[in-house]
Amino acid sequence: MSFTLKKGFTFGGWLPAIVPDQELDNHEFINHSLAKSEEEFLFNAFLESMKNTSIANPNPSVGCVIVKNNKVISSGCTEIWGGRHAERVAVDLFQNTDLLLGTQVYVTLEPCTHFGRQPPCIDLFKDKGIQKVVVGCLDPNPVMKQRGLEILKSWGLGTYNPVLANEIKAWNYPFFVQLQQKRIFIALKWAQSLDGCLADDNNGWQWISNIKSRHYAHWLRQKYDAILVGIGTVLNDFPSLNVRHPDIQQARNPLKVIYDPEGKIFHVQQHEQNKLIEKTLSSSNSTIILINDSALKFAKESPSVWIKKLFNDKKYCFITLNNNHKMSPGESIVNALSSQLVSDVLGRPVQSIMVEGGPRLLSAFIDNELFDVAHIFIAPFFLGGSKNRIFSTAKRSLNRCLLRQVSTASRFSLAVQERLGDDTLIEILKK
Amino acid sequence: MSFTLKKGFTFGGWLPAIVPDQELDNHEFINHSLAKSEEEFLFNAFLESMKNTSIANPNPSVGCVIVKNNKVISSGCTEIWGGRHAERVAVDLFQNTDLLLGTQVYVTLEPCTHFGRQPPCIDLFKDKGIQKVVVGCLDPNPVMKQRGLEILKSWGLGTYNPVLANEIKAWNYPFFVQLQQKRIFIALKWAQSLDGCLADDNNGWQWISNIKSRHYAHWLRQKYDAILVGIGTVLNDFPSLNVRHPDIQQARNPLKVIYDPEGKIFHVQQHEQNKLIEKTLSSSNSTIILINDSALKFAKESPSVWIKKLFNDKKYCFITLNNNHKMSPGESIVNALSSQLVSDVLGRPVQSIMVEGGPRLLSAFIDNELFDVAHIFIAPFFLGGSKNRIFSTAKRSLNRCLLRQVSTASRFSLAVQERLGDDTLIEILKK
Repeated sequence: MSFTLKKGFTFGGWLPAIVPDQELDNHEFINHSLAKSEEEFLFNAFLESMKNTSIANPNPSVGCVIVKNNKVISSGCTEIWGGRHAERVAVDLFQNTDLLLGTQVYVTLEPCTHFGRQPPCIDLFKDKGIQKVVVGCLDPNPVMKQRGLEILKSWGLGTYNPVLANEIKAWNYPFFVQLQQKRIFIALKWAQSLDGCLADDNNGWQWISNIKSRHYAHWLRQKYDAILVGIGTVLNDFPSLNVRHPDIQQARNPLKVIYDPEGKIFHVQQHEQNKLIEKTLSSSNSTIILINDSALKFAKESPSVWIKKLFNDKKYCFITLNNNHKMSPGESIVNALSSQLVSDVLGRPVQSIMVEGGPRLLSAFIDNELFDVAHIFIAPFFLGGSKNRIFSTAKRSLNRCLLRQVSTASRFSLAVQERLGDDTLIEILKK
Repeated sequence: MSFTLKKGFTFGGWLPAIVPDQELDNHEFINHSLAKSEEEFLFNAFLESMKNTSIANPNPSVGCVIVKNNKVISSGCTEIWGGRHAERVAVDLFQNTDLLLGTQVYVTLEPCTHFGRQPPCIDLFKDKGIQKVVVGCLDPNPVMKQRGLEILKSWGLGTYNPVLANEIKAWNYPFFVQLQQKRIFIALKWAQSLDGCLADDNNGWQWISNIKSRHYAHWLRQKYDAILVGIGTVLNDFPSLNVRHPDIQQARNPLKVIYDPEGKIFHVQQHEQNKLIEKTLSSSNSTIILINDSALKFAKESPSVWIKKLFNDKKYCFITLNNNHKMSPGESIVNALSSQLVSDVLGRPVQSIMVEGGPRLLSAFIDNELFDVAHIFIAPFFLGGSKNRIFSTAKRSLNRCLLRQVSTASRFSLAVQERLGDDTLIEILKK
């Protein structure tokens, strides 16, 4: 897929709503749309859709606003999975549906026409004296065949305004990809210097990117269902892998997934055990550790107190990787995460993962072109060194071959390019 | 210096005027300014200043428009060095200065008050019945102390409108830097993959960046006085180092400068000699070859026909590098290019150079923070390999040490960030 978002929009949504002090005047959309009411109200519905971010997963996060006399009189965002859809939330705010008379409804995604965990939204709008229902993006579900919009049209209500269709699709991209490709959505995320380094050669733990970039990165963490890191990164940085964003109130923390095929976590020193318990393995969200069958077997027979502690704590779950050698590391990871066990731990189906590092694990996914979007923060400085470069041949263990020729290398499409202070945010897609 | 340009503006000027098919709707300035006439006419003056790009060097390229009844009735751009300034060009279009009655003048840079190669521009506006003279940017010359604007104000004419002051400064940045720092302005330019590679490990000659980026790069070539490349790049790519841009009519080609301390050019094979003559050493603009004293001495005693040919052709000029070992490669290069001999070859003082490669030479300039602006094109793909990475430690011969720590590495400021198709253009400055 290849599409470009309007200035100010990212795969995390409308940037000025995520990052404080983001310069608004660089974003022509809002400046230009204010005079055009249909666009303005769709934009309002879009902002509404960002309010309950991630809690609706694996449902899309939809926004709905109801307008009367050119003013928003009600709005709603899809609730937690199994809960009400955006349209119902907005309509339920009225004690009496007679109040819908003479209103216009703006909804980011085509309303559903089928019974799922909720009755169909489309019926909310029938025979209520509504003037029009403006749909911002069509349902990607091939079974639907745009039935929602067609029925609305047959009632004289439906209009499709695609002005923000790509932006809505990007905001709900895991939903779109999973529906169409029947697999877990994969996002990559890293911050790099201009010369492609994710850290310096000392592995000293320091932020590469600035506070605005980190703010957006935390926003992404709660957008995806699971965060994946390699054991090398864990034992170097001891990342907390939780969401630390002052404006996020009701998000769920993502599942933590550690890729540790050889079971290095079993052999860490006492001081590392303490740090693990305090940092990466702490907090209420669960941890999945992906491991080879042989390493797991070995550990199960070990008398180590540390290993027994890991096995006995319900917060940690070991899942074995498929040892089919034809599978790339990325494929075996995605395969392992697709199991029912992981969904049980998460409490809902795993729709998306975000790979956060380190450089070798990220490079393995790039090498196989096994990603749907890469969120890349580029900070304006140079580090040199080779140990922590993205796509570096210096440490190849995970990767078949990281050498490309200019003439044959896959080029990705640039969907988003935004300034975050002195950092540059790039979001690329497979073409 | 640290400043940020408005969307759509670069150190090469207004991007949609340089790159064909550049999306205009991403640029809020022009959309927003059209209603505000003072900004609009300053923008017109800015576009006018881009018309004679580079031919005015080392003078600034100034633009001037004269407006009557809200319409531009005359305009001008600074002519070739020694020729008329923009204000005079615009005024000279009138056969009778009575026609200036009731006009407004918009000029990008503060008009001069002194006799140089031309009489002072300021006198053009005295007692002509002009309503106002709007100045877009103050003269950086400390001797001037804003006298031009003050005199205009004392005549009841002068207004300073800084809406495009940074953009005008960026367009004339070599002029500003040379005036304030008394040295040659240094620009760096390269195109890289996301992982910092300027070429693949095969050194196969292929474009990294797309056609829009290359278009802008050629525009930059005629903006600067000289283009610098290392002999490695010359013998690998045989670059023409001239300006190939369909819209550039009257530009001068830059001086070609080859950094070849050890005199590798003397020892090339027959087929390379032919390629050199055909490509890099061809065309009307002269070539400067920077070389160590010892290598030059050796060559002067050589009986080689090729070497004699190089020495006898007036198009090539060998200049020796200072062998002060305390100087970095970049410093010795700038030192050598500051000589009167180089200005004589160019036909005017050398105000600016652009370093185009290869990676080691560019990294040497970055290593010493010896640059004023770096124009970086980032293409959305990955190459791997290590031979042609920017700031790579793999080949260190030119560089003292290319290892940095995140906590202490110099961070540059992001002045420009623009989309060029799927490429990202970044222009960074020293803070």
